[in-house]
Amino acid sequence: MPSLEIYRRESDHSYAPGLYPSMEALTKRPESVRRILLHSKLAPSTGVDMLLELCQLHHVRTETADKALARVSGKENCFVAAVFDKVQGTLNPQNNHLVLHCPSDKGNLGTILRTALGFGFLDIAIIRPAADYFDPHVVRASMGALFSLHIREYDDFETYRCAFPANTLYPFMLKGALPISEAVKQKSHPYSLVMGNEGSGLPENFAELGQSVRIPHSPDIDSLNLSIAAGIGMFAFSNSSQTGL
Amino acid sequence: MPSLEIYRRESDHSYAPGLYPSMEALTKRPESVRRILLHSKLAPSTGVDMLLELCQLHHVRTETADKALARVSGKENCFVAAVFDKVQGTLNPQNNHLVLHCPSDKGNLGTILRTALGFGFLDIAIIRPAADYFDPHVVRASMGALFSLHIREYDDFETYRCAFPANTLYPFMLKGALPISEAVKQKSHPYSLVMGNEGSGLPENFAELGQSVRIPHSPDIDSLNLSIAAGIGMFAFSNSSQTGL
Repeated sequence: MPSLEIYRRESDHSYAPGLYPSMEALTKRPESVRRILLHSKLAPSTGVDMLLELCQLHHVRTETADKALARVSGKENCFVAAVFDKVQGTLNPQNNHLVLHCPSDKGNLGTILRTALGFGFLDIAIIRPAADYFDPHVVRASMGALFSLHIREYDDFETYRCAFPANTLYPFMLKGALPISEAVKQKSHPYSLVMGNEGSGLPENFAELGQSVRIPHSPDIDSLNLSIAAGIGMFAFSNSSQTGL
Repeated sequence: MPSLEIYRRESDHSYAPGLYPSMEALTKRPESVRRILLHSKLAPSTGVDMLLELCQLHHVRTETADKALARVSGKENCFVAAVFDKVQGTLNPQNNHLVLHCPSDKGNLGTILRTALGFGFLDIAIIRPAADYFDPHVVRASMGALFSLHIREYDDFETYRCAFPANTLYPFMLKGALPISEAVKQKSHPYSLVMGNEGSGLPENFAELGQSVRIPHSPDIDSLNLSIAAGIGMFAFSNSSQTGL
């Protein structure tokens, strides 16, 4: 029922549903938090006390808003949400990047952002058209990881490429030239891991843009799920110095 | 709206929604397929022709059932589904196993089954209480992978353990004693990778049941998503002979 949706892509603000994502917003990016929505039936807890203390510290007002919370969270129960300003991040040219080319699934996108934070990929480029990383479903699936990351959307891959010409590109493709175990041995910093769309993968010409990589798997499946492939890619590249991969 | 749900855990049959999962059922486990449901608006295609040929070959009848399809698939469009008998699998004691201890999320479970097939883990133990791996949502998320796997539910871990005393256990835990890169160097066949619940992980005493393993990640996240951790675990253990991990 679209008419009940509280969030729209055109909005200049979005919602972080849940106590943990709201705390992440208040801790990592307090200046972007407009206010905190609380449910009238919110039970007292240590977590809630911490949240209220953070609100006081950063002069963020709270508001009882049962209906808005129901609309933000859809069918799931939600007793807390942060309302925050949407601000695009700026990628650091000296860091390694994760580039998501036209990701379309909100849940996948959120999971990938959480994994990226876990493996130290703090700079994320998203090539449009793509799921909206500010969407409350993504924020929830990321467990608020997006408040610790620098994320920027680009209209096309060329624009990203021109902005970071020094990054070695590793496009992940089903027919990638090198298995991932070989690719990580040769990696040169700074680099960008490039992942394609859930259904269609990367366009074929990406094989010529850098060192294409494949994750070997049995022919019994067509491909790995995008969030799994991204997780394995980031794990292998970030852990290879420790593991001698 | 539970009254509209066509599938119940107590049923002796379930549904594989979608063309690809239905084909998998007919190809890998034709004897279990009772019939194929077709939507009256199903458009002709090569895939549909193949499906109908398989039905003829295996003497599986088709039936136009728009309402049943709507109930099987919920909000997603679904024009084909296989109705199949639920039969528990039998694990091979000589194979490596994946053990899922009380997994609760259907989408995660389906993704993990698909990944397991991709990395050659064909024998899966699920310790109850757990999400129902026959649930149509799981079947869909697995892309029909469950028809190629041997999956069995156990009432508790002890029962699984007694059935496969020769398997070396590798419980994945946040405070696991060995980083995964070390654990894979020492692995001995047959082994069982053991993964805990999404929220609570494995009970602490699992550290004493085998060689506990951790996937190193930054303290900025509490834990990896279960399907990501399982994917990395299976990737690292199955690829370590090639990668020298």
